[in-house]
Amino acid sequence: VLARLLARLPSGPPGERWAGDDAAVLEIAPGRCVVSSDLAVAGVHADLRWLSLADLGWRAVAGALSDLAAMAAEPVGLLAGLAMPAGADPEEVLEGVLAGAEAHGVPLVGGDLSEAPVPTLCVTVLGRSARAFGPVGRDGARPGDQILLSGPLGASAAGLRLLRAGRSAAGADPAVAAALVAHRRPRAQLVAGLVAGRSGVRAMIDVSDGLALDLHRLADASGVGVDLVDLPVAPAATVEEALGGGEDYQLVMVTAQPERLSAGFARAGLPEPIPVGRVLADPEVRTWGGGPLPRRGYQHGTG
Amino acid sequence: VLARLLARLPSGPPGERWAGDDAAVLEIAPGRCVVSSDLAVAGVHADLRWLSLADLGWRAVAGALSDLAAMAAEPVGLLAGLAMPAGADPEEVLEGVLAGAEAHGVPLVGGDLSEAPVPTLCVTVLGRSARAFGPVGRDGARPGDQILLSGPLGASAAGLRLLRAGRSAAGADPAVAAALVAHRRPRAQLVAGLVAGRSGVRAMIDVSDGLALDLHRLADASGVGVDLVDLPVAPAATVEEALGGGEDYQLVMVTAQPERLSAGFARAGLPEPIPVGRVLADPEVRTWGGGPLPRRGYQHGTG
Repeated sequence: VLARLLARLPSGPPGERWAGDDAAVLEIAPGRCVVSSDLAVAGVHADLRWLSLADLGWRAVAGALSDLAAMAAEPVGLLAGLAMPAGADPEEVLEGVLAGAEAHGVPLVGGDLSEAPVPTLCVTVLGRSARAFGPVGRDGARPGDQILLSGPLGASAAGLRLLRAGRSAAGADPAVAAALVAHRRPRAQLVAGLVAGRSGVRAMIDVSDGLALDLHRLADASGVGVDLVDLPVAPAATVEEALGGGEDYQLVMVTAQPERLSAGFARAGLPEPIPVGRVLADPEVRTWGGGPLPRRGYQHGTG
Repeated sequence: VLARLLARLPSGPPGERWAGDDAAVLEIAPGRCVVSSDLAVAGVHADLRWLSLADLGWRAVAGALSDLAAMAAEPVGLLAGLAMPAGADPEEVLEGVLAGAEAHGVPLVGGDLSEAPVPTLCVTVLGRSARAFGPVGRDGARPGDQILLSGPLGASAAGLRLLRAGRSAAGADPAVAAALVAHRRPRAQLVAGLVAGRSGVRAMIDVSDGLALDLHRLADASGVGVDLVDLPVAPAATVEEALGGGEDYQLVMVTAQPERLSAGFARAGLPEPIPVGRVLADPEVRTWGGGPLPRRGYQHGTG
């Protein structure tokens, strides 16, 4: 199986080596290497009652690539380490990994197959950060900065609710169908992340565990407070899902130059960034609509 | 727990970012980036009847770093993605990861904590390959080349046999104690790999799944035959363990200049490389002691 799948992978440009050796070799220069590694475990990160093994593979790829987007890094390649129960076919997970990688325009350059009691996938993504604007961290937010989102939130959480209720995309209205796709086949905002980096954002984080929690994390890292005044809710989602639902992979962008960010997004053909609040000096103040911003956890893709 | 462990990690030199953001940022230039990712699953790669969770962490680190050694790459950093059963403490595994990383002189730069039904660890290692000698693949062996080993084999398999038999290091003779350590706390041959690269080796592979199988893989990738004439057996190990046992992480080095390799090893204070055979033109010929070289699989650290 491995040999058959590896044969489908390209061997990479001259000077690089992808699958087939002890490790993958990639050109990164000039710039810095940005790397992130995410685990996806069946039953924990994806409930196989309503998600397929291919969905599990795609979702892990999108989640890992989203970490690069949130650093304003350009993806260079990804590795998939897959462990399956004895006798189970790894092909469906790897089909999902390949489809997700292809949808994001990122090559699969290596991996590993082994055994585990439940399907377990580790996706590692490698990217480069251009020297011109460097990696964008969570820690650069300053008092007075504006907070913007790359898109509305809650679609993935709404999709999970609809899947649990037995809804399918067949015959569904467009908002429901979009929510189901958002949960099963999310997309990392790679272009938005790069454009944001080029457009002078000071801090960024991707919404992987829910806006409320991820906004707290950004504020913690930057040593600032935040006032969330607006919350763009995806069609079919509730306010609760937009505030606490994870895996939307929209980007939270913090900048002193919101017009420059908007202009950059417009030039790249991206939807207008959505202003949602501002950064405060007092790190103790974390507000949403006048009340406290909840520090709310998130259940990954499972019931 | 994560915060406590992250607080113990250094934040890296200026320009780099290790733990604490969406992804880790590393300087790689000048050279090429070499990356490998390995999964370790309790009960599959490590049997917790005789190995500790810290052993599982250490072993995964050594196995991943060994892939860099086999490419003649210099390690730059590693990431650990750990999934544990609900309520279980990740600290022991991470202690083992940190100890293994430290023993190899490689910083832990990032990671991820999540949930899985059994302890599951994904270690990703990042390295750089110097432009002077480039990454050394499995595919460079040519007819007439010599095959050498960085050390004797079978210690890890012997250690597993002794652990299964209930042996412990306390009061054991040095050969038994060394075998137990070789299984519980293996070392990647990072220095040997770099010296081999600098000394003109043409092809390399690490012994992770047993010499017989890994030699077949190298011969397959190079499109050559091999004649194995000698087999250095570690103290306490059997010939069978030396030929088929995995996770010794010694390096198989193929070169047309064995004297240059020996001189390089001597200058670096490494034990003399051990000649074990030669490369043949006919890819159909794979021999060991006059008979066929078995293409034998390997059971990872479990009974």
